[in-house]
Amino acid sequence: MDTDEFKPKDHCGVFGIYNTNGRADVAHSAYYALYSLQHRGQESCGICVGDDGVMRIHKALGLVPDVFDQRTLSELGTGNMAIGHVRYSTTGAPQVVNAQPIVVHHVKGSMAIAHNGNITNDDELRAEFELDGAIFHTTSDTEVIAYAITRARLNAKSIEEAVSVAMDRLKGAYSLILMSPRKLIAARDPNGFRPLCLGKVDDAFVFASESCAITALGGTFIRDVQPGEIIVVSPDLENGYASYKVDGRLNLCVFEYIYVARTDSYLEGYSVHKARRRAGHFLAKSHPVEADVVIGMPDSGLDAALGYAEESGIPYGIGLSRNRYIGRTFIQPTKEGREEAVHIKLTPIADTLRGKRVILVDDSIVRGTTTKSIVSLIRKTGAKEVHVLIASPPFKHPCYFGIDVDNREELIANRFTTNAEIAQEIGADSVGYLSIEDVRKIAEVPGADFCVGCLSGEYPIEPPNNAGKRKFETKLSEKQG
Amino acid sequence: MDTDEFKPKDHCGVFGIYNTNGRADVAHSAYYALYSLQHRGQESCGICVGDDGVMRIHKALGLVPDVFDQRTLSELGTGNMAIGHVRYSTTGAPQVVNAQPIVVHHVKGSMAIAHNGNITNDDELRAEFELDGAIFHTTSDTEVIAYAITRARLNAKSIEEAVSVAMDRLKGAYSLILMSPRKLIAARDPNGFRPLCLGKVDDAFVFASESCAITALGGTFIRDVQPGEIIVVSPDLENGYASYKVDGRLNLCVFEYIYVARTDSYLEGYSVHKARRRAGHFLAKSHPVEADVVIGMPDSGLDAALGYAEESGIPYGIGLSRNRYIGRTFIQPTKEGREEAVHIKLTPIADTLRGKRVILVDDSIVRGTTTKSIVSLIRKTGAKEVHVLIASPPFKHPCYFGIDVDNREELIANRFTTNAEIAQEIGADSVGYLSIEDVRKIAEVPGADFCVGCLSGEYPIEPPNNAGKRKFETKLSEKQG
Amino acid sequence: MDTDEFKPKDHCGVFGIYNTNGRADVAHSAYYALYSLQHRGQESCGICVGDDGVMRIHKALGLVPDVFDQRTLSELGTGNMAIGHVRYSTTGAPQVVNAQPIVVHHVKGSMAIAHNGNITNDDELRAEFELDGAIFHTTSDTEVIAYAITRARLNAKSIEEAVSVAMDRLKGAYSLILMSPRKLIAARDPNGFRPLCLGKVDDAFVFASESCAITALGGTFIRDVQPGEIIVVSPDLENGYASYKVDGRLNLCVFEYIYVARTDSYLEGYSVHKARRRAGHFLAKSHPVEADVVIGMPDSGLDAALGYAEESGIPYGIGLSRNRYIGRTFIQPTKEGREEAVHIKLTPIADTLRGKRVILVDDSIVRGTTTKSIVSLIRKTGAKEVHVLIASPPFKHPCYFGIDVDNREELIANRFTTNAEIAQEIGADSVGYLSIEDVRKIAEVPGADFCVGCLSGEYPIEPPNNAGKRKFETKLSEKQG
Amino acid sequence: MDTDEFKPKDHCGVFGIYNTNGRADVAHSAYYALYSLQHRGQESCGICVGDDGVMRIHKALGLVPDVFDQRTLSELGTGNMAIGHVRYSTTGAPQVVNAQPIVVHHVKGSMAIAHNGNITNDDELRAEFELDGAIFHTTSDTEVIAYAITRARLNAKSIEEAVSVAMDRLKGAYSLILMSPRKLIAARDPNGFRPLCLGKVDDAFVFASESCAITALGGTFIRDVQPGEIIVVSPDLENGYASYKVDGRLNLCVFEYIYVARTDSYLEGYSVHKARRRAGHFLAKSHPVEADVVIGMPDSGLDAALGYAEESGIPYGIGLSRNRYIGRTFIQPTKEGREEAVHIKLTPIADTLRGKRVILVDDSIVRGTTTKSIVSLIRKTGAKEVHVLIASPPFKHPCYFGIDVDNREELIANRFTTNAEIAQEIGADSVGYLSIEDVRKIAEVPGADFCVGCLSGEYPIEPPNNAGKRKFETKLSEKQG
Repeated sequence: MDTDEFKPKDHCGVFGIYNTNGRADVAHSAYYALYSLQHRGQESCGICVGDDGVMRIHKALGLVPDVFDQRTLSELGTGNMAIGHVRYSTTGAPQVVNAQPIVVHHVKGSMAIAHNGNITNDDELRAEFELDGAIFHTTSDTEVIAYAITRARLNAKSIEEAVSVAMDRLKGAYSLILMSPRKLIAARDPNGFRPLCLGKVDDAFVFASESCAITALGGTFIRDVQPGEIIVVSPDLENGYASYKVDGRLNLCVFEYIYVARTDSYLEGYSVHKARRRAGHFLAKSHPVEADVVIGMPDSGLDAALGYAEESGIPYGIGLSRNRYIGRTFIQPTKEGREEAVHIKLTPIADTLRGKRVILVDDSIVRGTTTKSIVSLIRKTGAKEVHVLIASPPFKHPCYFGIDVDNREELIANRFTTNAEIAQEIGADSVGYLSIEDVRKIAEVPGADFCVGCLSGEYPIEPPNNAGKRKFETKLSEKQG
Repeated sequence: MDTDEFKPKDHCGVFGIYNTNGRADVAHSAYYALYSLQHRGQESCGICVGDDGVMRIHKALGLVPDVFDQRTLSELGTGNMAIGHVRYSTTGAPQVVNAQPIVVHHVKGSMAIAHNGNITNDDELRAEFELDGAIFHTTSDTEVIAYAITRARLNAKSIEEAVSVAMDRLKGAYSLILMSPRKLIAARDPNGFRPLCLGKVDDAFVFASESCAITALGGTFIRDVQPGEIIVVSPDLENGYASYKVDGRLNLCVFEYIYVARTDSYLEGYSVHKARRRAGHFLAKSHPVEADVVIGMPDSGLDAALGYAEESGIPYGIGLSRNRYIGRTFIQPTKEGREEAVHIKLTPIADTLRGKRVILVDDSIVRGTTTKSIVSLIRKTGAKEVHVLIASPPFKHPCYFGIDVDNREELIANRFTTNAEIAQEIGADSVGYLSIEDVRKIAEVPGADFCVGCLSGEYPIEPPNNAGKRKFETKLSEKQG
Repeated sequence: MDTDEFKPKDHCGVFGIYNTNGRADVAHSAYYALYSLQHRGQESCGICVGDDGVMRIHKALGLVPDVFDQRTLSELGTGNMAIGHVRYSTTGAPQVVNAQPIVVHHVKGSMAIAHNGNITNDDELRAEFELDGAIFHTTSDTEVIAYAITRARLNAKSIEEAVSVAMDRLKGAYSLILMSPRKLIAARDPNGFRPLCLGKVDDAFVFASESCAITALGGTFIRDVQPGEIIVVSPDLENGYASYKVDGRLNLCVFEYIYVARTDSYLEGYSVHKARRRAGHFLAKSHPVEADVVIGMPDSGLDAALGYAEESGIPYGIGLSRNRYIGRTFIQPTKEGREEAVHIKLTPIADTLRGKRVILVDDSIVRGTTTKSIVSLIRKTGAKEVHVLIASPPFKHPCYFGIDVDNREELIANRFTTNAEIAQEIGADSVGYLSIEDVRKIAEVPGADFCVGCLSGEYPIEPPNNAGKRKFETKLSEKQG
Repeated sequence: MDTDEFKPKDHCGVFGIYNTNGRADVAHSAYYALYSLQHRGQESCGICVGDDGVMRIHKALGLVPDVFDQRTLSELGTGNMAIGHVRYSTTGAPQVVNAQPIVVHHVKGSMAIAHNGNITNDDELRAEFELDGAIFHTTSDTEVIAYAITRARLNAKSIEEAVSVAMDRLKGAYSLILMSPRKLIAARDPNGFRPLCLGKVDDAFVFASESCAITALGGTFIRDVQPGEIIVVSPDLENGYASYKVDGRLNLCVFEYIYVARTDSYLEGYSVHKARRRAGHFLAKSHPVEADVVIGMPDSGLDAALGYAEESGIPYGIGLSRNRYIGRTFIQPTKEGREEAVHIKLTPIADTLRGKRVILVDDSIVRGTTTKSIVSLIRKTGAKEVHVLIASPPFKHPCYFGIDVDNREELIANRFTTNAEIAQEIGADSVGYLSIEDVRKIAEVPGADFCVGCLSGEYPIEPPNNAGKRKFETKLSEKQG
């Protein structure tokens, strides 16, 4: 269930547009694109318009429709290009200072950056730059990237060369979109942990975290940015854009398919919806259950539930209805009334469930609290059996490459050893997970592999020593005035 | 598609609760109940708490979560009972003065009323009362009901007797919930045009437009209020409540099943979800189409699409993805970009549609503009054929009993004569509607009939002469100072 | 000091405009007029535009600039006439339902009413109307006035005749402005407790509580509405307006001069500023003090302080500076820090006070808490002596005619018997009040007298038996369902 | 008149507090202090709390009461120290990115800075730092100061030494307050262009732009920070603070006395109120006029008007009343109705003006439009003569040291040559200004001089070549990608 506040959260979504045919209403384009990437981050968002070297930015905490209105969009005005960003939501107090894009001014002019991912050596780089007199305004690794590029720019012939030099210093996961006074640049780390693709909308080239943003604008998908690739868009280039390549090999985060990306997106050319239905197919083979109906958790488990039904031959049913008016201002019932909350957000469709052996499919299970409530609700409605099948392997290890999970010790997969124990905990007749072997096959991307580090504990590149989120508050107290 | 702003709108949802066991947090209960009835009205909402004869009310324009927060709920405080109301949204400027419940003070104390329906002789009654010195603050027929009851109360022994006398004067459709200093009363017109049911939540009796509100509170459905019935809840009564019956025979509005009610509700004991799936079954029989996949318009057509797939044997697919971040502050693209808007709100899942013969099922079609955009979008995504099947008959006639449709001349069913013409207009390969005969059978309610006046032009009771919405603005200019 | 939350509060300010030359932007005129009457009420405000019989209203809790913006004003639109109202602020929770103007619809059309004052027999009238089947929506006596006029209208030839008949039933204080589909009417009770005047702005006739509203619009003061007078404005009348007279004799509330009205207004043709300076003159004669400087409490005591200085020959000084950024959202320091609050709102000008014998003049003193803080502040700043002189007699008795004081037992004049005791309480070297004899002379209005009931306990007309504010909450619990 | 939007605007007000006795509610102290400095800047404000090395900041566009509420203050929490800032308002779109304080993180920890003034060589310094790889986030000279200190800190033994080294590089006007993890530091440029003073509030040392902030907190003024002085507050120091001195000589901006500072403040030990009354005395000597009454423009001209009255013997009167409800949301009348606006904001007190020869005193006159309206208003009210006397010399030259005037060509003193011409333009019988000679004498500060550059064109230090406000928009387009 994707309203579960304990689910892993992707860090961000990024977008960039360059209109090769003069100035255009790029702010509105970015607005609609960010709308379609909203699922990748709900904490803050921002758009920066580049207008012949002048950069105008607006960013704030909140959802896209809260942060932008006609007035702010018209103040951003028209321009040659724009980049945009949506940022994830944490349980702690969000900080507007870390909202993106960030705009900095250096010796060669201005530069705007939007970043999705996680730089694993940002502490070392930050220390190095500080020792050279640098000051930082934020705790974000995006500012470290900005410094790395700025420093490289001092001796580089072009901004793309500077990006390339900086990429030699940066470790970890990054899908970057960057705007200089005259160029729009996209860069993806050599493992391609986070998605990034290129498309065309009328006379404009666009970059986006997911293809759904290109579709939203009525545009055409061209291709994914390759691992280790830098793509520069500039009107001076023959085809409108040029590519520079660092060696790389795809290790796309498998959770992008499982639940981060939108079901209508294509990642590395493969349909997310299809991957999820395939997850259902694999589940039906590895975890056959005798049952009367297969239902999906709305909306996160619907695709895999349909896949399970297709493969197993058990009828697909609509068993849970979601109240679509629940918003951020919903007043939570008190602790005692926690289960009641579920009755408001999700309600059972009795006609589908009563007297039935029910298979409930979801994309993942984190703390288990919500699933437990739903299972109980389905039983109360009259189901004879409830089997919970999860279209991904258990999430057990930390992610260093852009996915954030709080309180790992609370993960249900870390609190219990066997599926039987988990079933007992959540009140289900049985529980089954997709295997790591199967999850690697859910999308058929030739010559590529997925990062399954959070599932297996084995990472494509070495994880950093210090994996904690940077906290200036504790850090600063060690320093002296 | 239920985001279509041209769809018929139900007037309201009502709720009432009486805690037989002293004071309780009835305001929060009403809050959660209204949340679950939000689909019945988004213009305004209100809650009135009755606390030992003292009535405290809060109502305003906006959705339930916008109008109520912890502060307003705690100002409403605890009480013996509460009633609540959600009101529909029109395209014109909404008026807070018409928000409900309304509280009036008369010779026997205070009275709060929440009303769903439409009084067809309210003009005559209003004129009669005015000639006797009455003044009106609103243009709502609820105030006319209040006057009718107040006048009857002068000579009646009890408030329920006053309601009964008033019901002899009131014509049309009404599902009323009324609170006097000591009693909670529900009343339903003799045709039972609008739904109303009774349930129990712990020590409280509750009334609601739909059973989903009872389920939301974790309560138990007892039964529907019968056509022409008055139910009084009071701690002085032996079983907690008593019934008074006026002659009646059910003519429930068939559109309640088709799209007004929530899919998890039961109306007259019959599952709304099941009725919609049956509509799909009937459609599959009456409109067989050779196709590869059946998809539903999210979320309005999903149930009927599943029904069609079940009956026809054609696979059910997930073909459209809905952006759930679209809210009221979404900035509409300009006219030229109208089709683009659809790309933001609804996006195609190409893997389901490409190269396929697609059946698209929806619950209704009004102006046709949105459907046309969706059909075009599905074709662009690569579908070979698109057949549109509608799980209700064409809406051609006015409703006088609580459903409001603006601009009847814009209805697609009134602009074209044949399904082939409509198919051409919206770019579909074929279009099919459920027949009036079939729609009457979608829910099996013994001894009852449905009102299908808006479909057939034949009404259970005589419609009023003047069917226009009361407009003081035009009316008043005829009067003299 | 006029930020003292314990000061008596006037109930309201009223305004009306009739443009004799067709439709005009009367909503903006009312907006500016209400701005200039804002000091008469800060709780809520409203404007109703009459446009050829159509009435459009907007009213809400809040100050004029909070309630009205360009959008709401343009929705009110142009019209022939408009009336407006500002309402006072109480410490309890304000209720929007009692905001004015109120618009009611009766057998002869619509009617809008704005009322300043207090009907003393509204309980009797309300009971009488209820026994005849009337229902009330508010607790305001304005609704009683509306009923009285509506009932009279049934048999009256014209709205003005109905007003006249109703005035025979209404007791107490009222300055009314009323709008029928074709006429604008002003009426003032036979004692003229509350002010009301007539003016002209270009082609429009205007009524207002104070002349400052006429001046604000760049208009010309014509004359005060006389006690017991009804003035009708209509384009059909020869001079634009006609007068109907009930017997009356002026007993204008003396507190209007002392602190309710704005210093630049004229009431009954007499300058409020001059009246306040005269109060200073009288004080200087009755309470001569040896001192070095006379300062006024900003802004409430400045006029009288200047008067004292003029008459006594002691130099006038500027001794206190007011922070004009203090608004409603100012965060009050905690109880312990109460005195600190004064340092934020009012600060001493040391150069004026240090080493000086200071006379501090204010218009009134209510609980004394604020005055005590100010006296202490002046002493801390280095003043050798502080004498407090009050330009009005002590407020000791209730007002039944439109002025509201909470917690009469907390009035400093009721807690102490002598000026010496009060001086000791507030830490002043001496305290002096204007005498009742003198206050009656502060404005020279031929043939008139002032109501000084709250000072002397003797009222021009008999006060009501039940002087409490109507509270439905307690009242209703006595009634039966 | 200080509501004139064309008046020169001071850049900022600054505040700092160090509680020597452990953690305290320094955020509330800063809140109240900024309230009392609000007149120095209304565009944005911010508070940064230092809590044992951890820095928490909140800043935003808006007035102090809009930006801070109980929630934001409690999120700032308690701490050892805090600094705060208010920033001026321009006609252009304000940018939150330039709000202060700014917090930066460098190799020795965090640093927060609040700055009032204008660095005249910030372009050169910025270019120098950029050539060394620096990046800038803002267009504010405060960030340049931060860089200068950070770079100096790399080789300095302490933060105060770094500030001292940086001061050798910085030219222009600056009154700085700076917070390191353990120290609170104040620094003032060697000319002392902008005020800065030190005080004590209970166990805390405080710095503020004006003494009124110390008084507001109930504290005691200690002394002004001297030109070129650095004061460090730290619990490790014997007396709580230590002073480091760079050579300097006071050239305080004379406009601080004339209208920037609050009338109850003392600057360099001299009462601002007294300085303004002295300006009135000088005016009375240099511009004697035969008249009946002297009135001041509220509130800006009241002190000088009283001074004029005292010296001339002409009675002081209260001639204009200010509507204190006018706020930022006031809807301006259209151009044609411009004069009407004045009737809303300021209204004449006819009793003071009618038939009189009036002297109107104000602190300055900029474009003249407002003064012209007021003169016309006074005449319409019946004044026989209106003489306008200005308590400062004409403002003719740019200020490079912290005062901002837009559109210098629109200054009335630059559009006309003689006082007679100006009088004719604004409709006055005569106009007189204070002489430059006299303005230098309004405050008696031994051994000091005032900067009168904007009046005389002669500046204490050389002005910069490029005096324009930094505009990245134009600058950036020259750079290359």
